[in-house]
Amino acid sequence: MNEPDFIAALRHLPLHPGALGLMDDCAVLPLGSETLVLTHDMMAEGTHFRADADMADVAWKLVATNLSDLAAKGAEPVGVLLGHMLGRQDARFLEGLHEALASFAMPLLGGDTIAATGARAFGLTAIGRASHTPVPSRSGAKAGDGIWITGPVGRAMLGFEGRPEHRSAFDRPVPQLAEGRALAPLVSAMMDVSDGLLLDAFRMARASEVTIALDPQAIPVADPARFDDCIRWGDDYALLFAAPSGTALPLPAHRIGTVTARGPAPLLLGEQSFSGPEGLGYRHG
Amino acid sequence: MNEPDFIAALRHLPLHPGALGLMDDCAVLPLGSETLVLTHDMMAEGTHFRADADMADVAWKLVATNLSDLAAKGAEPVGVLLGHMLGRQDARFLEGLHEALASFAMPLLGGDTIAATGARAFGLTAIGRASHTPVPSRSGAKAGDGIWITGPVGRAMLGFEGRPEHRSAFDRPVPQLAEGRALAPLVSAMMDVSDGLLLDAFRMARASEVTIALDPQAIPVADPARFDDCIRWGDDYALLFAAPSGTALPLPAHRIGTVTARGPAPLLLGEQSFSGPEGLGYRHG
Repeated sequence: MNEPDFIAALRHLPLHPGALGLMDDCAVLPLGSETLVLTHDMMAEGTHFRADADMADVAWKLVATNLSDLAAKGAEPVGVLLGHMLGRQDARFLEGLHEALASFAMPLLGGDTIAATGARAFGLTAIGRASHTPVPSRSGAKAGDGIWITGPVGRAMLGFEGRPEHRSAFDRPVPQLAEGRALAPLVSAMMDVSDGLLLDAFRMARASEVTIALDPQAIPVADPARFDDCIRWGDDYALLFAAPSGTALPLPAHRIGTVTARGPAPLLLGEQSFSGPEGLGYRHG
Repeated sequence: MNEPDFIAALRHLPLHPGALGLMDDCAVLPLGSETLVLTHDMMAEGTHFRADADMADVAWKLVATNLSDLAAKGAEPVGVLLGHMLGRQDARFLEGLHEALASFAMPLLGGDTIAATGARAFGLTAIGRASHTPVPSRSGAKAGDGIWITGPVGRAMLGFEGRPEHRSAFDRPVPQLAEGRALAPLVSAMMDVSDGLLLDAFRMARASEVTIALDPQAIPVADPARFDDCIRWGDDYALLFAAPSGTALPLPAHRIGTVTARGPAPLLLGEQSFSGPEGLGYRHG
């Protein structure tokens, strides 16, 4: 099966209400007076990192990508559970893990360590506590809202391609946890840009049943000569959000578009319209 | 690195207090008036299942082994997060997953689905709610306690070896969730027997800083002619627990030993004494 088919089939299993229909990056679990936010992401050799990658960077990125999902929910770190497959550069993996956990004030709660053969895969479950309820979702964008992004897109792509000044954007992304918490009370929808700005904006529009019209002139890109690539590459982990026009934002952000009632296509980019996700960004599997 | 070295190194990272020093199968996370119990176990092709295994059994076992850790804490199911690597027999995997989640009243909360190359690995994070606090740990056994086990050991071994009447014990183990909840208020220590009775009893003795003396005549084994193997093979998932002598138990269990003050060796089996874990059971990695 491919990934969309598998996820569609998962939706026929017994789902927790907090699974949000498997339409979001996180589960939301109310518990007494608290609300937990939970996410689990895997990274596999060959798919998410190269066989010769510095394993300290892989460990950092495993933590950072999961915490970026929590950031988009405005959640505070509680702890992580690690699924580790033993192998090359385990000491380096531990160094990167240590740096990431310390940097993001995210302690280790537990996990599993296994021996295995062949290509390696790692899993991380990140647990956060909502700082604001209702927890922002992808699906709340409303006609009349503005669309903002907290930073440029394309740096991770340039870093992956070897441009030294952008290497850290690819190797050591930083989840925008403080920004997410500051924005959570103000936004109508929020998500992190992990699979490409166009694809993630399309997903927000579809989940919210609106049309999002992006202004190509307003989108901050790391290399204007590579505009089309920058808006399709993922791994930058800026926050994309919708908020009522005129909202006083607590941090600098780029207004890149506007939400309208659902038109013929969920996503517009200037004069271009996109009715499906094909060609918009990085689709796994 | 091997597994013990890796876990020892993890203990130098920032740990959550609920990680219990990474000495237990679960993390325990107090949150308001509730206490969450969290565990994450992985299964890898070649290490935990054969390349030609029925993937429905693999999915079932992935759920069951994680829930067995919750059972040993007396926890009630809340939900699971799945880390799935796409590949052979995904539809069968979904069938087994569906059966397990429905059987154990454990809904899906979320997770991640990835494409990857080579041998496959799966991860599952299970989240439970403590039904009794303090949550039973491995470390509470006290001199004078009795040692009990809720069922025989060795059935999974015989099933793995092809004995038809024991196949289900290996392929479709059943976590003792109701038994764990019934026992939690009464026990001084509890754990599931996943890596072999001798090794797991050794671990309980070491964590509790006591000596556990097992009576070989009293241990229920699936095949008395294979006694030494039965008490060293894992995968049976009975509950092993310590409780004050004379405790009125709410369910049938086999009293297999006694706790004494720490002597020269943590574990005795009749006249034999074991001062280290070597040769006691299944040690990964």
